[in-house]
Amino acid sequence: MTTWEKIEGHLGTPAGFYGSATHAGIKKVPDALDLALIYCESAITTAAGVFTTNLTAAAPVILSRQHLKTSRGRVRAVVVNSGNANACTGRAGRKTAEETTRLTAKLLGIPREQVLIASTGVIGAPIKDALITRSLPSLVAELSREKAAEVTRAIMTTDTFPKACSLRARIAGRTVHLAGIAKGAGMIHPRMATMLSFITTDALIGPRDLQKMLKAATDASFNRISVDGDTSTNDTVVIMASGLSGVSFTAGTPNGRQFLAGLTELCQSLAHMIVRDGEGAKKFVTIEVTGAHTETDADRIARAIANSPLVKTAIAGGDPNWGRILCAAGYSGARFDPAKVEIRINGLALCRRGSDAGFDEAAAQAEFDKSQMTLRVNLHQGKAQATIWTCDLTHEYITINASYRT
Amino acid sequence: MTTWEKIEGHLGTPAGFYGSATHAGIKKVPDALDLALIYCESAITTAAGVFTTNLTAAAPVILSRQHLKTSRGRVRAVVVNSGNANACTGRAGRKTAEETTRLTAKLLGIPREQVLIASTGVIGAPIKDALITRSLPSLVAELSREKAAEVTRAIMTTDTFPKACSLRARIAGRTVHLAGIAKGAGMIHPRMATMLSFITTDALIGPRDLQKMLKAATDASFNRISVDGDTSTNDTVVIMASGLSGVSFTAGTPNGRQFLAGLTELCQSLAHMIVRDGEGAKKFVTIEVTGAHTETDADRIARAIANSPLVKTAIAGGDPNWGRILCAAGYSGARFDPAKVEIRINGLALCRRGSDAGFDEAAAQAEFDKSQMTLRVNLHQGKAQATIWTCDLTHEYITINASYRT
Repeated sequence: MTTWEKIEGHLGTPAGFYGSATHAGIKKVPDALDLALIYCESAITTAAGVFTTNLTAAAPVILSRQHLKTSRGRVRAVVVNSGNANACTGRAGRKTAEETTRLTAKLLGIPREQVLIASTGVIGAPIKDALITRSLPSLVAELSREKAAEVTRAIMTTDTFPKACSLRARIAGRTVHLAGIAKGAGMIHPRMATMLSFITTDALIGPRDLQKMLKAATDASFNRISVDGDTSTNDTVVIMASGLSGVSFTAGTPNGRQFLAGLTELCQSLAHMIVRDGEGAKKFVTIEVTGAHTETDADRIARAIANSPLVKTAIAGGDPNWGRILCAAGYSGARFDPAKVEIRINGLALCRRGSDAGFDEAAAQAEFDKSQMTLRVNLHQGKAQATIWTCDLTHEYITINASYRT
Repeated sequence: MTTWEKIEGHLGTPAGFYGSATHAGIKKVPDALDLALIYCESAITTAAGVFTTNLTAAAPVILSRQHLKTSRGRVRAVVVNSGNANACTGRAGRKTAEETTRLTAKLLGIPREQVLIASTGVIGAPIKDALITRSLPSLVAELSREKAAEVTRAIMTTDTFPKACSLRARIAGRTVHLAGIAKGAGMIHPRMATMLSFITTDALIGPRDLQKMLKAATDASFNRISVDGDTSTNDTVVIMASGLSGVSFTAGTPNGRQFLAGLTELCQSLAHMIVRDGEGAKKFVTIEVTGAHTETDADRIARAIANSPLVKTAIAGGDPNWGRILCAAGYSGARFDPAKVEIRINGLALCRRGSDAGFDEAAAQAEFDKSQMTLRVNLHQGKAQATIWTCDLTHEYITINASYRT
């Protein structure tokens, strides 16, 4: 199997990609980057996207879905703003999204449907077109490989650090790149979240194959994290493939699997960064459920544990309260015999056969005090398993969210 | 329709009931009541119970379900402890529950299956039989009508106030009483919670009818509240009817509906007290969803809003962030057109036709700053509706739960 090597890089690292970012004035903080553009010069660029399942999907999500379909996966640019989600904004919001993509397409000299749009920030606040449209000409004029690095910061909202990852592999004697950025940090839930992620690659892949592989990579990464159980209105993951590496990939073949492995690794890296930067999060928690009858059972249990405020606050407090973990498993809807369950924190057994394992309290607390931990729940029923990544629930989550809007 | 009048009273108010409470030493706080007994002298007593749906049901829940069945609803006593949930305690926990009911039955001179048991407190900690068994003889010896009032405090854990309600009505020329107590305050979720509730009445009702009416009253009260979305291992609601009022009731008849109205009022009063005393809660929030296609849709939306940490923290912060409400509705799984939704806080419109209603920010904040509020979500789609009661999510919830066990 090909090894994908982590490298220093940004969205402009894969051949053919340019970017730029500016302060349009949507964010109230002076000079904070809040509008960005990603563009690919390659005429053979393909694209794929995965969007929120929320019925209250934001205007940019609705429009991007349309454009992706109309262009048959031949998207060349993504314009993105932070500071306003353009969700629950009615007709005016839809007009803003349409006008933004129309003007961007005109400035770039490409068809309108080849431009996608994404927004993140406050829901329900009217968005001011003028701020965006007046900034677009300079955004297009300033496109460059180097400036693509700035897009990472331009999509941040409550994120405390920028999230980016770049990979490189030698395949068929040539070099292929994958680069991705993402933002969190609240409304993060298994079925896509207030998260945006943009990925560029110089691989050569047909749009259908790209969509298939993006879906698979997303299911194994962004769809396996949870910060607070709230599925947002704006979740968007978009990948663009310039084809300029000259290495072509086909889904379902050994060579397609090579690309999928890199894409999954990239998405998992970004997904883990989102969890680490979950609002108020101090601890990174891997929840591994094994020994289940079915994968669905394992998945349900892992998600119930990851979303339990009682488990999350116990982890925040460094309290080895394994009973709450077994309790969450019990109401998850999965089938299992509680009397067989084993629960471990890192290597230490807390619960065996559904009861207290007689662990050393201080030793268990020490494991729970670590900034990174793995909760292992073995049901001892079958062979299926599932992993979910989550964080603790702290005072800071409350502080951030009690005053986010005002 | 009969009017049920709220009166001063306790579990011993309905004819035939006695109670007692003591400090057995299960709670670490000196002299804190942690063991209690409710007993009915009437040989014609009937009983009904509703228990947690959690697969990890605690030993007392499993045993009480059995006893209720074996006795065919002819239960005469409930023994209850706080400070230890006797959940996830394996064989030893089952033995403790069995031994406790066996000894209680022996001391009372009634069959074992006529004694139910309930526990609340820490999950997974071994429970010390001796503490309970050595206290039972004095508990039985001290049974009295007046001491039944002490049971209310004996079942408290993180509750900050005792929860009790007594009702009286004149029916068929005689007086009928209903009295109930309950405890919260974490692991509170629609499908029963870490809540215990015990209800006494001197109505004369067959056990099947009593079970039917308890189920209906519970569905309209305890199953419509949410504090944190965690369904506990120990939830138990038990009602005992002594029959000593001489007034008999039959489910499904006009006279049965009179009793059900009182029982529902009692359960709702207790359920609301649980929400008001939700861990860290400062605000009592009624979520009313109207204009839905189906009751299931209305219910899903109301529950999604009630369980959204983002909505709950916004309420805590007094922030009229209606976008999060619409967002939660959007991921609830219910069918509706976001563009038709209207959202009001008390009388004030925040959102109309899915967009900002152009409300006065200060006025809206003033409504959100109230300690009691109603969020009205009108979908403008159909005629179905649902109501859920919940509370805000505050720093104190985190503080309480980060250190509950240690």
